[in-house]
Amino acid sequence: MSNSPMLSARAIALEIEAGRLTPEKALQFGLDNSTAKESKLNVFSHQPKKLTAGKGPLSGIAVGIKDVFDTNDMPTTYGSKIYEGYQPPTDASLVSMLRAAGATISGKTVTTEFAWFTPGKTRNPHNTAFTPGGSSSGSAAGVAAGFFPAAIGTQTGGSIIRPAAFCGVSGFKPSFRLFPTVGLKHFSWSLDTIGFFAASAADIAFVAAACSGRDLEVNLKSRKAPTFGLYKGSIDDQMSADMADALKRVAKIAKGAGAKTVNVRGPKAVEAARAAHAPIQGYEACMALADESTRNRGKLSKKLRDYIRECQQITADDYDNARRTANRGRKACHGLFDDCDVLLLPSAPGTAPRTLKSTGNSIFNQLWTLMGLPCVNVCVGKDANNLPIGLQVIAPFGRDKQALQAAHWLEQAIASQQD
Amino acid sequence: MSNSPMLSARAIALEIEAGRLTPEKALQFGLDNSTAKESKLNVFSHQPKKLTAGKGPLSGIAVGIKDVFDTNDMPTTYGSKIYEGYQPPTDASLVSMLRAAGATISGKTVTTEFAWFTPGKTRNPHNTAFTPGGSSSGSAAGVAAGFFPAAIGTQTGGSIIRPAAFCGVSGFKPSFRLFPTVGLKHFSWSLDTIGFFAASAADIAFVAAACSGRDLEVNLKSRKAPTFGLYKGSIDDQMSADMADALKRVAKIAKGAGAKTVNVRGPKAVEAARAAHAPIQGYEACMALADESTRNRGKLSKKLRDYIRECQQITADDYDNARRTANRGRKACHGLFDDCDVLLLPSAPGTAPRTLKSTGNSIFNQLWTLMGLPCVNVCVGKDANNLPIGLQVIAPFGRDKQALQAAHWLEQAIASQQD
Repeated sequence: MSNSPMLSARAIALEIEAGRLTPEKALQFGLDNSTAKESKLNVFSHQPKKLTAGKGPLSGIAVGIKDVFDTNDMPTTYGSKIYEGYQPPTDASLVSMLRAAGATISGKTVTTEFAWFTPGKTRNPHNTAFTPGGSSSGSAAGVAAGFFPAAIGTQTGGSIIRPAAFCGVSGFKPSFRLFPTVGLKHFSWSLDTIGFFAASAADIAFVAAACSGRDLEVNLKSRKAPTFGLYKGSIDDQMSADMADALKRVAKIAKGAGAKTVNVRGPKAVEAARAAHAPIQGYEACMALADESTRNRGKLSKKLRDYIRECQQITADDYDNARRTANRGRKACHGLFDDCDVLLLPSAPGTAPRTLKSTGNSIFNQLWTLMGLPCVNVCVGKDANNLPIGLQVIAPFGRDKQALQAAHWLEQAIASQQD
Repeated sequence: MSNSPMLSARAIALEIEAGRLTPEKALQFGLDNSTAKESKLNVFSHQPKKLTAGKGPLSGIAVGIKDVFDTNDMPTTYGSKIYEGYQPPTDASLVSMLRAAGATISGKTVTTEFAWFTPGKTRNPHNTAFTPGGSSSGSAAGVAAGFFPAAIGTQTGGSIIRPAAFCGVSGFKPSFRLFPTVGLKHFSWSLDTIGFFAASAADIAFVAAACSGRDLEVNLKSRKAPTFGLYKGSIDDQMSADMADALKRVAKIAKGAGAKTVNVRGPKAVEAARAAHAPIQGYEACMALADESTRNRGKLSKKLRDYIRECQQITADDYDNARRTANRGRKACHGLFDDCDVLLLPSAPGTAPRTLKSTGNSIFNQLWTLMGLPCVNVCVGKDANNLPIGLQVIAPFGRDKQALQAAHWLEQAIASQQD
């Protein structure tokens, strides 16, 4: 990973604080990388002509904004033809919070259509024949390619953890509603969760803490090894051979570095909640896109039109039942952590698929989005095609710092193995 | 109440269905009333030049839209100078759903600034020297004055139930998140709840059911008397003498009509949650209005500027603790209904205060907004100033139909008493 073009937000901030780097020069690093590679990778849906440094803990830190967040000074399309040329009057709350902390918005990053499954134009920086994942495609690819040290995205199914895994960056899907969704274009409000991308768990924690004032920063000195729960779920047969190997290999590395591992069998109520994701997302999407799917139906992708039409069959009873199933699952989640600090699972079925017509499968993410638990993707190696393999660390609800700390520990354990 | 100018949505729909009324004529009823009285009452922030009838169960039903909901064809100001002349690209979800059911948007109704406490220009139709309540001022006043048979509003503290009580209309604050908030300008996303105004509980149920496809309609034939829980809370000393009398009088009427009443003492965890409303609202408001309060600070009212400044002292820990307190309260709410079907409480400390500089006090509403329980205001009489007195019927979470049915029962019991 040492020849990675990724920029470390924490390292940049420390250099600036020490007077060894100006915020302007820091912003230039990312600009140089995007000048060199944007035409190949298509990270941005909009890039401003000039970047100006702000003041505060994130001064000199460029942040890519997934184009489902409103920005008052840049076009915002939500990945949809309907909104071509639209510029909202107001920044999304998280965009304002980032600016207030001194961050510079480096541009709007490509999203799939309304953060759902119709791909945008972004390619995987590790191999441009492969998908970067979605829906936060540009945010993940841009961090991987060193266009900006940090980016924000959203996850409704697997739209943070999956692209983070496919692009080999750290991705953080926080506890549900830890960060405000005001100014976000919703697809499914019970699921849409705002999160971050950066070069490492410590970098993500630094940016998330700086813009929110929350105690999220990773303790870099701590050597305390977490106990990892190896989650045995009903969909484990869907992981690739590479992914199954990676899980075993990483568990061994973790043990070698002093961690304990235990097997965790999914409680029935948690496993039952898997089936609740689809009706909740579908029922809400029909309402969230009620205007677009009536007045501007012709400007939706056929894929999304068909999805909305199907989902209109979901009844209020189906939806209410699914919400109850999800609530029972959430309550049962406490039991997951009886014998471990965090869970360790695949971030996706495998590495990025060789296609630009799909962003991959979110089956390993949907349940955890619905359960609202904090998830962090850790890049644990690469496959034969040079594509990153990602595992996710999952902590109890509200224990976001614990998830980030454990992900940091795992990153260190893997890095020392590679030395 | 028989000489009330209010329009019944249900009655209109039945007349249209029977062929005795055209949708166009039905729309004209409201237009005639607003032509006669708008200059005195200031219900609308925007009124379209022409109303066109739609097709569906709400054909011919005009609906007032509180001006915190986006409308693609009408200006949307959120009650703020910042948004003067702003016209959003998209209808809020509920606006789309109303249109899809055939309703006609009769205009945008006056809201306080961002649905908080700085009053708009609307006056109380029962006596123009008095506040109509807020923040859904225009929606409540407009139903009371017969400008439209139904309206939508939002409640974060007491912004549906209080103006409904002050204006003598039926007001329905549903279970939290029963209706979608997409396209609503948020003030505090954990509290902002969408609801309805109409002439009666049956009218509200009809409109809410028609636009959502939910089973909410009141059974008009049912004579089954509910058991009312008379809630004894820690703030009961704040109700006026008129209100205390009304509670006693209505309990007696209910008993006379065959209902049981029981005293319900608030569980500790529920009463403790009262203190959680302010930090949750304040902390979220700082984030929800992050852009407005930095880039457009000068265009906020002084009152709101001061509030935001104060609320910036609320820490993430304060907020997280308040959310935990609220969650404990929500769990304890089940116990409220051990011996009764619904609770009966004041909708406000008393009738509307004689002022246009305040919209009154939401102290009798905040807890129930935070608990997420469905509340329905029932007009139970008038005071010496000709101002309506309102009580609220409150049902368990998710039992919205039960709240509406009990409110309907109580309306009937009171009406037969007055006959």
